[in-house]
Amino acid sequence: MFECRLRKAEILKKIMEAIKDLIREGVWDVSGNSLSLQSMDTSHVTLVQVALMSDGFEMFRCDKNLALGVNIDTMQKLLKCSANDDTLDIKAEDDGDVMDIVFTGQNGKVAEFEMNLMDLEIEQLGIPDQEYSCVVKMPSYEFQRICRDLSNVGEYVNITVVKSGVEFGVKGDMGDAKINLTESSSADNEKVTVTIMVNEPVNLTFTLSYLTFFTKATPLSDQVCLSISPDVPMVVSYEIEDLGFVKYYLAPKIEEDD
Amino acid sequence: MFECRLRKAEILKKIMEAIKDLIREGVWDVSGNSLSLQSMDTSHVTLVQVALMSDGFEMFRCDKNLALGVNIDTMQKLLKCSANDDTLDIKAEDDGDVMDIVFTGQNGKVAEFEMNLMDLEIEQLGIPDQEYSCVVKMPSYEFQRICRDLSNVGEYVNITVVKSGVEFGVKGDMGDAKINLTESSSADNEKVTVTIMVNEPVNLTFTLSYLTFFTKATPLSDQVCLSISPDVPMVVSYEIEDLGFVKYYLAPKIEEDD
Amino acid sequence: MFECRLRKAEILKKIMEAIKDLIREGVWDVSGNSLSLQSMDTSHVTLVQVALMSDGFEMFRCDKNLALGVNIDTMQKLLKCSANDDTLDIKAEDDGDVMDIVFTGQNGKVAEFEMNLMDLEIEQLGIPDQEYSCVVKMPSYEFQRICRDLSNVGEYVNITVVKSGVEFGVKGDMGDAKINLTESSSADNEKVTVTIMVNEPVNLTFTLSYLTFFTKATPLSDQVCLSISPDVPMVVSYEIEDLGFVKYYLAPKIEEDD
Repeated sequence: MFECRLRKAEILKKIMEAIKDLIREGVWDVSGNSLSLQSMDTSHVTLVQVALMSDGFEMFRCDKNLALGVNIDTMQKLLKCSANDDTLDIKAEDDGDVMDIVFTGQNGKVAEFEMNLMDLEIEQLGIPDQEYSCVVKMPSYEFQRICRDLSNVGEYVNITVVKSGVEFGVKGDMGDAKINLTESSSADNEKVTVTIMVNEPVNLTFTLSYLTFFTKATPLSDQVCLSISPDVPMVVSYEIEDLGFVKYYLAPKIEEDD
Repeated sequence: MFECRLRKAEILKKIMEAIKDLIREGVWDVSGNSLSLQSMDTSHVTLVQVALMSDGFEMFRCDKNLALGVNIDTMQKLLKCSANDDTLDIKAEDDGDVMDIVFTGQNGKVAEFEMNLMDLEIEQLGIPDQEYSCVVKMPSYEFQRICRDLSNVGEYVNITVVKSGVEFGVKGDMGDAKINLTESSSADNEKVTVTIMVNEPVNLTFTLSYLTFFTKATPLSDQVCLSISPDVPMVVSYEIEDLGFVKYYLAPKIEEDD
Repeated sequence: MFECRLRKAEILKKIMEAIKDLIREGVWDVSGNSLSLQSMDTSHVTLVQVALMSDGFEMFRCDKNLALGVNIDTMQKLLKCSANDDTLDIKAEDDGDVMDIVFTGQNGKVAEFEMNLMDLEIEQLGIPDQEYSCVVKMPSYEFQRICRDLSNVGEYVNITVVKSGVEFGVKGDMGDAKINLTESSSADNEKVTVTIMVNEPVNLTFTLSYLTFFTKATPLSDQVCLSISPDVPMVVSYEIEDLGFVKYYLAPKIEEDD
């Protein structure tokens, strides 16, 4: 038997929004200490990873590790049926073929969904711990804005990180664009703080459309963290306060000779 | 000569929004005590009934009963031209072929529309007074939300009413859903009160898409009232304070043997 | 070398929104006292004129008159990348083939776009100074509303101006519409003031769809000014406070005998 309760159904609703455009089907892995999901996107270019720690739940019980295969689109549609202040309960029997999703409102309204589970074979890739050449933390809405604006100009973004700042550059038919951010901090306001850590400067190119998909996670967190090294995938990470994270992995574009 | 004045054009604008997706053409019946319209929807499945009592108008004059045939879509488009605090005047000559619709704004703006009338033969169905097995009153926005959410799951909703509560159940390919409401009251807040009256418990099935059409009337009223009995159409009723109502009638689906 | 700085990038963003649906390509004429653009719309029916006086800029330097040909759609897309409180810098070399557009945010973010210039042959029409039979000033949002509402009824609007007021009349299949405004003033509130100056009453007909295009300039100004005379194009003018204007010219429809 697996059961858990989240005080705010809203959080899982936002997580489903953040992954639904990348993943069609996925497996929720349930263990004693987390509820997690990891999957390549449908085009097999990016890796999406969600992990929610058991400590972050109001209640979490897992008698036996389970792998619960779901249609992501279906699950997202059901989560959309929650109101913002609903409590969320999820249940699954050890050998069951459904996942129970229950929203309980402040007003005595109880909505219960029995979602069919799927048999899915999904290979788990090990993701090695890694030290990165550069780590940039910035307001998540600002990263979203930059990706959206640069998408108007071209298809690929060149990210250059040096001690003094980070530059997002795009070349396109209509012209070129460069957006620069410098480190800045505001004691208590994560919404405007930019932090840049550099071991080695980097200069790498990524496909903008995937970054734009990742920014669907913006509502989950005030800050986004970009961990970048040559030759390994960049990690775009959104921390969910007191609960876990959503991370996206995208390999840099291999530069061809011009 | 028929003429009437409504303090808020906005109310008739909302009424037109509430019926325009169901009815293409309709006849406004004018008598000494009301302005009303009754029509089957274009697919001949549901009946729509609007009644506005003369007492609710600022001014109401009807020298002779009239039947004013209109294109609902046209009338809705014209009503959309009113600003929210406009006064509305409607006029029609006894043998005229136009309806005059006049909006008067606070700022001296006067918008006058002369809408062509249509010759329509529409048979009036008598709707017998009826006692219902169950009557459920609930917040109109909650009913709208439930219809919308369940539409994601399946096509038909099973409504079960017993003393302790009302359940809306749907079966679909992705799984099943059940939403339960229990009686609850808040002295002065119609927006959250649920009231359930049961003579005989009922368990009936309805087509969700029609219920969803009915919820276009949500802005007219804080509460919606569902009157349900086996073998007769359910009434979904929205009261318009001090003026009248919009009601929709929908027959239950006849259960086939599985 | 040409360079200028606007305190609010937002203003040029709104100007681009106001002209982008009418003009595909245009030439910014830079001189010592203004940055201006004038062009027929793509269907060669209306004339659009933008003029921004050098005094209205924070900084304005023009060493030599320039004609900078741009793709309007591209420039509008780039301007959309500005945040509302960004400062805007524009630069162009005397013999360059790019325009530099730079947004500087409050938070140290700098976005720099290098937009390719185009070689465009655009003939400048002289617009003679003219005294008009009637000049109507009215709230710009009200003019927008009237154009939108009347578009529901018909294709052409008949504008009648007399001392006592202005009437916008439309005839259509569904019926006729007339909207009347009278002079009204509110000491400090441009948002509701209507002013009517009449040398000679006029009664002229215009194509509504063009007027509707012009109302894209509504966010630039609280008031719009209609200058009307028989036989010459009407001027629909939006003043931009302390900076300049956007004007549209549209000839009246020649009345055919019915």
